[in-house]
Amino acid sequence: MNEFELIDVFFKSMTHHREDVILGIGDDASCLRVPDGMALFVSCDTLVADVHFLPDWDAYDIAFKAVMVNLSDLAAMGAKPAWLTLALTLPEFNSDWLMRYSQGLRDALDRFNLALVGGDTTKGPLSMTLTIHGLAPEGRLVGRHGANPGDKIFVSGELGAAAQAVAFLNQPDVDGAHQQRLMEKLLHPVPRVDLCDHLQQFATAAIDISDGLGADLNHICQASQVGACLAFDQLPIHPLVRHYQAAHSFDFAMKGGDDYELCFTVAPQDEVQFLEMNAQLGLNCTKIGQIQAHPGLWVTYPDGRVRAYPPEGYAHF
Amino acid sequence: MNEFELIDVFFKSMTHHREDVILGIGDDASCLRVPDGMALFVSCDTLVADVHFLPDWDAYDIAFKAVMVNLSDLAAMGAKPAWLTLALTLPEFNSDWLMRYSQGLRDALDRFNLALVGGDTTKGPLSMTLTIHGLAPEGRLVGRHGANPGDKIFVSGELGAAAQAVAFLNQPDVDGAHQQRLMEKLLHPVPRVDLCDHLQQFATAAIDISDGLGADLNHICQASQVGACLAFDQLPIHPLVRHYQAAHSFDFAMKGGDDYELCFTVAPQDEVQFLEMNAQLGLNCTKIGQIQAHPGLWVTYPDGRVRAYPPEGYAHF
Repeated sequence: MNEFELIDVFFKSMTHHREDVILGIGDDASCLRVPDGMALFVSCDTLVADVHFLPDWDAYDIAFKAVMVNLSDLAAMGAKPAWLTLALTLPEFNSDWLMRYSQGLRDALDRFNLALVGGDTTKGPLSMTLTIHGLAPEGRLVGRHGANPGDKIFVSGELGAAAQAVAFLNQPDVDGAHQQRLMEKLLHPVPRVDLCDHLQQFATAAIDISDGLGADLNHICQASQVGACLAFDQLPIHPLVRHYQAAHSFDFAMKGGDDYELCFTVAPQDEVQFLEMNAQLGLNCTKIGQIQAHPGLWVTYPDGRVRAYPPEGYAHF
Repeated sequence: MNEFELIDVFFKSMTHHREDVILGIGDDASCLRVPDGMALFVSCDTLVADVHFLPDWDAYDIAFKAVMVNLSDLAAMGAKPAWLTLALTLPEFNSDWLMRYSQGLRDALDRFNLALVGGDTTKGPLSMTLTIHGLAPEGRLVGRHGANPGDKIFVSGELGAAAQAVAFLNQPDVDGAHQQRLMEKLLHPVPRVDLCDHLQQFATAAIDISDGLGADLNHICQASQVGACLAFDQLPIHPLVRHYQAAHSFDFAMKGGDDYELCFTVAPQDEVQFLEMNAQLGLNCTKIGQIQAHPGLWVTYPDGRVRAYPPEGYAHF
């Protein structure tokens, strides 16, 4: 099977269900329509075997997660997903693997009305680069640079579950049901695309916390030239992380990556309205602190003391 | 140096010189403005060490070529380049290598007024995926599917030089000046972005012939549901390929990839006007045959005989 047959068999049918795809898979480039008044948002992520996933994972899970990881970046900008390109590097042609991979990809695309509009298949060490394209009204940009002193800091979902799942890999003596719950969080994260409209309406800044809350909140602070102070006892730490990490669960939740939840800031005058909506719609967002003029990342402990907190994240090099 | 410092030092300055870049490198996604009436064209290519380049090549050349390869896909659609994302996977942090790589990237971007608007850096086996974005008027799509029987077939530039350079790798006994001329074609191909407007005006179909003229012309035929007949003695074969391949130079030029020239079709009523413009502007395009209703790829030999020609190209798997 050559590259073109491979594309035809496994990927070509995922391209043509959106009306804004003028030309999808099968030419030198795809051709896409961006509606008037909308801006285009683009993000890309590479997933490498042994770094972002294990080669023995079900190919379905690898594909599904790869899409979710990319979607999370768009969600952090308040942009709605539209189109995806996939550059897939494979060590060999394996029909079963590709079948599972394309099923995971299809399910991920269908769930968020994404069209696969192009890509490349190459022989080499297993890895994939997904480039995702989304749309949002041009005037309303939710970046990392808009946080102001006094803004309230929110985080979505629960923290630390994916990192706990990684810590438990190859530990067969852990409670099976617990391990399964955590692996589900690691393998099938659900990016917060549901927050897009609300971020556009309320957020002064937002970021995807895939590198860990501490490191990523620090990016908001640096881009906005502000600092942040978090309340030690307000972090929505996953119950199993509290259970297994006990006294270390705060640090674990601050540093653990791979959760694909969002951290964002809301101006104080919008706080009440956002909290009401959060409760009404069950968005599961938690207020965890406040932006301040003084730079750096700080934590208020239950005894009232405030201490600087090191903003470490995952470092590739 | 962490991932973010690496991006700041080597890549961040390449993002902000185009007015349509609302937000470039440094956030979860970039934000880009597509002008009213324009369609967005997207293409991506992965380059893997030992497949698309040798790891001991100057990093400048690797980066430069990676951009050119991607530009060629856009050029084949008649689209003007605008934005690029780069997903770079590196085995280790090497400051000298990154300096050369970023210089090659910058020179390639500057040459075509491209902005680097985002990307990802990951640790792993050396490879890179570039996703390129371009613009063209929405109503005027130059794809692979528009060729009609009677259309004249053109190819740009000269064929086979890059394949001849590959054939000469590690052959120190070849004439040095010849080898240098050929390596220049392999390392620094110049994609035919200069043909964009002319393709929009004249071409019924077009394709980038990076997989070899035979295989890629066959893609036009399949997408357009037509056949093609080429004149054996009309192919613009590079003089050094004629010199070294002698009797085999036709086959060599048909199968040799990596030239990054374009093959396109022009309706018979436009042929004269196109040929005049081609001569006037020095576009260096050559008429090599004609589209026919009968499917398949055919060649007319000097003795008048017409024979089927196998449309083989580079196969990854």
